[in-house]
Amino acid sequence: MSLTGSYTRALGLLASVLFVLSCASSPQPGAQEPKVGAEAEASVDPLPSWNDTATKAQILDFVRAVTDPDDPAFVERAERVATFDNDGTLWVEQPVYAEMAFALHRVRDLARVHPEWKNQEPFRAVIEGDNEALLATGRHGLLEIVMASHTGMSATLFDTIVTEWVRDARHPKFEKPYTELAYQPQLELLRYLEANGFKTFIVSGGSVEFMRTFTEQVYDIPPERVVGSSIETRYEMQGGKPSLLRLPEISFVDDKVGKPVGIYRHIGRRPILAFGNSDGDFEMLQWTTVGSGGARLGLLLRHDDAEREYEYDRKSSVGRLDRALDAAGQSGWIVVSMKNDWKTVFSEK
Amino acid sequence: MSLTGSYTRALGLLASVLFVLSCASSPQPGAQEPKVGAEAEASVDPLPSWNDTATKAQILDFVRAVTDPDDPAFVERAERVATFDNDGTLWVEQPVYAEMAFALHRVRDLARVHPEWKNQEPFRAVIEGDNEALLATGRHGLLEIVMASHTGMSATLFDTIVTEWVRDARHPKFEKPYTELAYQPQLELLRYLEANGFKTFIVSGGSVEFMRTFTEQVYDIPPERVVGSSIETRYEMQGGKPSLLRLPEISFVDDKVGKPVGIYRHIGRRPILAFGNSDGDFEMLQWTTVGSGGARLGLLLRHDDAEREYEYDRKSSVGRLDRALDAAGQSGWIVVSMKNDWKTVFSEK
Repeated sequence: MSLTGSYTRALGLLASVLFVLSCASSPQPGAQEPKVGAEAEASVDPLPSWNDTATKAQILDFVRAVTDPDDPAFVERAERVATFDNDGTLWVEQPVYAEMAFALHRVRDLARVHPEWKNQEPFRAVIEGDNEALLATGRHGLLEIVMASHTGMSATLFDTIVTEWVRDARHPKFEKPYTELAYQPQLELLRYLEANGFKTFIVSGGSVEFMRTFTEQVYDIPPERVVGSSIETRYEMQGGKPSLLRLPEISFVDDKVGKPVGIYRHIGRRPILAFGNSDGDFEMLQWTTVGSGGARLGLLLRHDDAEREYEYDRKSSVGRLDRALDAAGQSGWIVVSMKNDWKTVFSEK
Repeated sequence: MSLTGSYTRALGLLASVLFVLSCASSPQPGAQEPKVGAEAEASVDPLPSWNDTATKAQILDFVRAVTDPDDPAFVERAERVATFDNDGTLWVEQPVYAEMAFALHRVRDLARVHPEWKNQEPFRAVIEGDNEALLATGRHGLLEIVMASHTGMSATLFDTIVTEWVRDARHPKFEKPYTELAYQPQLELLRYLEANGFKTFIVSGGSVEFMRTFTEQVYDIPPERVVGSSIETRYEMQGGKPSLLRLPEISFVDDKVGKPVGIYRHIGRRPILAFGNSDGDFEMLQWTTVGSGGARLGLLLRHDDAEREYEYDRKSSVGRLDRALDAAGQSGWIVVSMKNDWKTVFSEK
């Protein structure tokens, strides 16, 4: 695909977009309180950070059914594939995707060796923090930022640059490394599924090479179980050593209709459980649950907790949840309320 | 990528090509006899189908070193990635790649609903078994055969078609299903590596969707640990059910310089052991062993056993081993002799 041809897909790459969304939305009053301890779970609770709500009961029931050889819903171990979106499902995505924060930081960093950027959009806007002008550059500007920050170096160098950023960056609201903003209930769910013979995968619109630098450390999910967007690379010898050069061309956008395609390419099995949080996950949940026969579970995390995290859905430009929310009822997808279903949001450590 | 743009890559897809190579090459006299039992291995031999040659000793030494925390060559468990080519490395590739045999069979099958093919190359040549005319159609003809046999159906249907072919097809020389022509010594090596904390992957020029139908059954390698060539797919709803439609466009060619790229995309770690058998594996072995620091092992299987399997290398159009053979000495790659290093070729069952 040519650079020109990439523009359309680039919009998909970083979803509906980004850029400091400083909306401090007000919490919805009157939301349901968690139903605590309606029925005590078995001796050891595998999901201690989940409140004892109907949501938790449905998850436990599903796992019990598909792992019980005497249950009609039983699923062979090899077929127990569970896919999780990353941004907004496994860790915080507001006020801007971590990867976008990285890209903007990288552009400011590179500006030192690109004096011409001072007079060149979208770079001038990034350097001067002129968000209005930045937004005005649209898809074209976004693509230029992604390419400037993500390509033109070796795979090894990119890995180092991302690793250092992930180590040093702090989230603007929580003032912690992003890696400490993974959701504790989801970490428990991943381990609980794995303990029940599931293979867990991340299937995200973010770029696979960005995510892999932290997924093993943060989620205990190794690189080969991460599916994401990617750019083209070229293998070549440089000074007698082999190298993979990252090229300014997008090769795959793992978002929306791209998610089932990415799952087919990379995982090769249809999931029986999928967990997302935005319209970018609509097709992944559809592919997982619709018309497949057998027990299937689709889950959507709803960010309705302005106090402990954020509150946003239909109107957000980051992690918009609109179409998928409308479809949830008819499709039997469980809408997980961060406010009511989660006892804890982040790890206490 | 457009259909037109695919021609060049299609040549790569099925490597240097195919088509009944009925060369009965004569065995090389004077080849080394296996050195048996020079040193008895520990109580239980993990590789009983390998003769006790220097090759076997080198493999055992390598695995012992990288798994010993006190050895300077020690490699953390997570980094123990081993990649294996498929055709000619894990199973028979002569006289024609199994996937090409499938493609030709499928074209003959489809001819019933394509009466116009009787007068249309390359289809006429396939139907009538006119190999000379078939070869004359070159890359263009090859691509048409691949597209006609591999695309234009749903992912689910393709899986069914391949599964049935793999079940029913018989190898022309051995008169057995291809799935019984996996190499016993390699199955032992896969298990031995896994028992020592390695993750094993297939990295092959064959298409990933073709291989996945049998890799778990034959090699005990699950779909997500198979990297291969692939075509574009489109997600869409058909009659209220989600479907993945296989399109006549190649999306990735996992051969030659494509292998390190495929490894980067899919596995996300540089292998410490790579096993191939042809020039298509050159870059994979180079990427694995050159300039990476630390203990690395590159292996090339040499088909020098006309009696038990086949004998071919520099002149073969299927699985040509020429450039990689020349590079082996300088690169420290081990050339495994099927004739001398393997006690058994196929499983006895």
